[in-house]
Amino acid sequence: MSVITAVDTFDIRFPTSLELDGSDAMNPDPDYSAAYLVIRTDAGDGHEGHGFVFTIGRGNEVEAVAIQALRHHILGRNVEELLGDMGGTWKLLVHDSQLRWLGPEKGVMHMAIGAVVNALWDLKAKRAGLPLWELLSRMSPEEIVALVDFRYLSDALTPEDALGIVRTAEPGRAARRAALLAEGYPAYTTTPGWLGYSDDKLVRLAKEAVADGFGQIKLKVGASLEDDIRRVRTARDAVGPDIKIAVDANQRWDVQEAIDWMAHLAPYDIAWIEEPTSPDDVLGHAAIARGVAPIPVATGEHVQNRVMFKQMLQAGSLQVLQLDAARVAGVNENIAILLLAAKFGVRVCPHAGGVGLCEAVQHLSMFDFVAVSADKNGRMIEFVDHLHEHFVTPVDVHDGSYWPPSAPGAGSEMVGGTLAGYSFPDGPVWAAGSPPLTPRQ
Amino acid sequence: MSVITAVDTFDIRFPTSLELDGSDAMNPDPDYSAAYLVIRTDAGDGHEGHGFVFTIGRGNEVEAVAIQALRHHILGRNVEELLGDMGGTWKLLVHDSQLRWLGPEKGVMHMAIGAVVNALWDLKAKRAGLPLWELLSRMSPEEIVALVDFRYLSDALTPEDALGIVRTAEPGRAARRAALLAEGYPAYTTTPGWLGYSDDKLVRLAKEAVADGFGQIKLKVGASLEDDIRRVRTARDAVGPDIKIAVDANQRWDVQEAIDWMAHLAPYDIAWIEEPTSPDDVLGHAAIARGVAPIPVATGEHVQNRVMFKQMLQAGSLQVLQLDAARVAGVNENIAILLLAAKFGVRVCPHAGGVGLCEAVQHLSMFDFVAVSADKNGRMIEFVDHLHEHFVTPVDVHDGSYWPPSAPGAGSEMVGGTLAGYSFPDGPVWAAGSPPLTPRQ
Repeated sequence: MSVITAVDTFDIRFPTSLELDGSDAMNPDPDYSAAYLVIRTDAGDGHEGHGFVFTIGRGNEVEAVAIQALRHHILGRNVEELLGDMGGTWKLLVHDSQLRWLGPEKGVMHMAIGAVVNALWDLKAKRAGLPLWELLSRMSPEEIVALVDFRYLSDALTPEDALGIVRTAEPGRAARRAALLAEGYPAYTTTPGWLGYSDDKLVRLAKEAVADGFGQIKLKVGASLEDDIRRVRTARDAVGPDIKIAVDANQRWDVQEAIDWMAHLAPYDIAWIEEPTSPDDVLGHAAIARGVAPIPVATGEHVQNRVMFKQMLQAGSLQVLQLDAARVAGVNENIAILLLAAKFGVRVCPHAGGVGLCEAVQHLSMFDFVAVSADKNGRMIEFVDHLHEHFVTPVDVHDGSYWPPSAPGAGSEMVGGTLAGYSFPDGPVWAAGSPPLTPRQ
Repeated sequence: MSVITAVDTFDIRFPTSLELDGSDAMNPDPDYSAAYLVIRTDAGDGHEGHGFVFTIGRGNEVEAVAIQALRHHILGRNVEELLGDMGGTWKLLVHDSQLRWLGPEKGVMHMAIGAVVNALWDLKAKRAGLPLWELLSRMSPEEIVALVDFRYLSDALTPEDALGIVRTAEPGRAARRAALLAEGYPAYTTTPGWLGYSDDKLVRLAKEAVADGFGQIKLKVGASLEDDIRRVRTARDAVGPDIKIAVDANQRWDVQEAIDWMAHLAPYDIAWIEEPTSPDDVLGHAAIARGVAPIPVATGEHVQNRVMFKQMLQAGSLQVLQLDAARVAGVNENIAILLLAAKFGVRVCPHAGGVGLCEAVQHLSMFDFVAVSADKNGRMIEFVDHLHEHFVTPVDVHDGSYWPPSAPGAGSEMVGGTLAGYSFPDGPVWAAGSPPLTPRQ
């Protein structure tokens, strides 16, 4: 047996606001950041568990403190016990009777739990010598269902429902694993569409995206209707009729405003409208979905937990479910969400980009394809070609697809130099004379 | 003009878990705590703004750091500008483009914003020489409506709707103020009903509550159906048929479980079922409300923001709205919630107890009666007789009512000795040899 000997946290920030990368209608100047942790053991096998919460700058220190507040649950604990019952470990963290008050199951504390859970999965996958998607895909249906906490889900998904879904997919696992290795998993790109980019840069990057094999691009909208119409038309002219164009309002609108605005963009054949309003507004999204049909509504990167996704599926609030690797409480809760989506027959197109989200979330989509939904029609993972060099096993995206990682782990490990160089506020990138924290404020 | 010269934070914890005060089905061992701040200025008038987030122990340090993450928005700023446009100040804090990622508008960060907003209101009321409820009740309808951010609300409540509600109430303000001073505002008590209490203690405290003039008591339920039936019956026998008995499950159940459980308690004439399931489950609460009717469903102490309350009102999820002074983003957002409740004709019975929640929330109910809903029929504020001695202006509750505070401010200021004595982990109460942090874990 071995025990967890250290849970170290890091406040890592990249000065991305200097380039307007990642700018949208609600986030004009993000400094992409990660509240990061490393779990160490005394096993002597060299394996560590790495995990993180993605943030966009200020407040990253709050997430780091939130991770520290969870340390007492795992520090000094038996590694094999924690990793051997990941469903139980998840409940240990989520149901802390005092920390629960700070959510419950939402926001800073829930994201911190996600980072810890994901770091434990990273450690478990490294110990197994498998990439996370393979580790999950080799579990029995009973083991998979045991990872999920069905509290608050049973009116939409019971353990028996979940077991039925995973069992139905079981016979085809080997064939779909082979297809995944041969074909990859579809990707789309947001790289051309940031709001801060000029029309020329938009056109150039959109054409590059098509040349790179992507079948869909995404544009940020919501700040100016006139600009949006021009930019969507410009992009449509640049890519032609066969490439899908999705738009993303980043929560900018109220319900009727979303419906009215989208009527102006509809002529340009919109693949989906993403985050039209508050991520909390289940009923508002449902009203928007009715109002903009047949354009699908997509949301999820800010949806706080499985209870909200459950309702969005029940109410018809979304037609594209965008799960996020670092918003909910980690791999376990995302498996609950994948099972909910499968139950309701809704396609999952994960949110990615940011810092390490591509590296992390690909494992979930690939696992879903092999062992849960058994489907990749109309499904794709977001891709932004940004900051991958900071990861030990960066994503392999080419020919418009993610290609399955083979390295053991969950993809969440940053290179050592990044942890040192981008530490805030004392790393060399942020030290005196370097980029200010908030260059535009 | 004057400027804000300091925003000091404190981690204050009370070792309440040693007494089982506050124990319920989800919170077996709370250490009631406050992440607390004091705003100081250079005005030389001696006035400070005090505010807090209530928590139940672990994680209080996370809230304190979250409050610190907001300091840059107000430190060094012109006091008169900030206090003169509290609607604008609220948006400044809530719409921070980077901090917003940590919610948005929920959990640790949103509660921290609430503490800062409430501290500014405390300062504003002290400067005006008025208790907060009086300060708010003297504002013009236009000034009141300008405090509210209508983003994400306009499908249920427009600024015009809000103005209409407040204008309708305006002519009767003076008469209702007089009534409030003469009659007080109704209270109910949760003191008898904590889950950790013996039946004998329950009976004794229930009878004391009736003798003290309370017309309603509340019992915690949800851990054991057999125990709940016995405890509710015992309480009913103790207080007789004329006293209302509400029950509170503290989010323990799934949807069908709530409906089934309540069928067993219904024979004892239940005033409401509180928090039957996840506070995030708008649709679940609506299903429960249909399933347990005519017993009303009450919720709100964990409802994260105005967008969730909006939906709960739209969907018929609650018949009793329990706003909380320290969960959402402070006075401004609670005014939005009061306006929503008035629009939908739903009664508001605030959550209180904890640390300072009674002191803070009474101002909102009294303001609501004078200037918004103009109604106190069936409305009452929760009361728990606990920890009030730590406040400079503790609530005045007698004869089953809250009596309007006359001291300037928002009621949120703790006595200096408490800030020193209960600071965690270095205050004398928590220093070596004192109560351990988590006595039961």
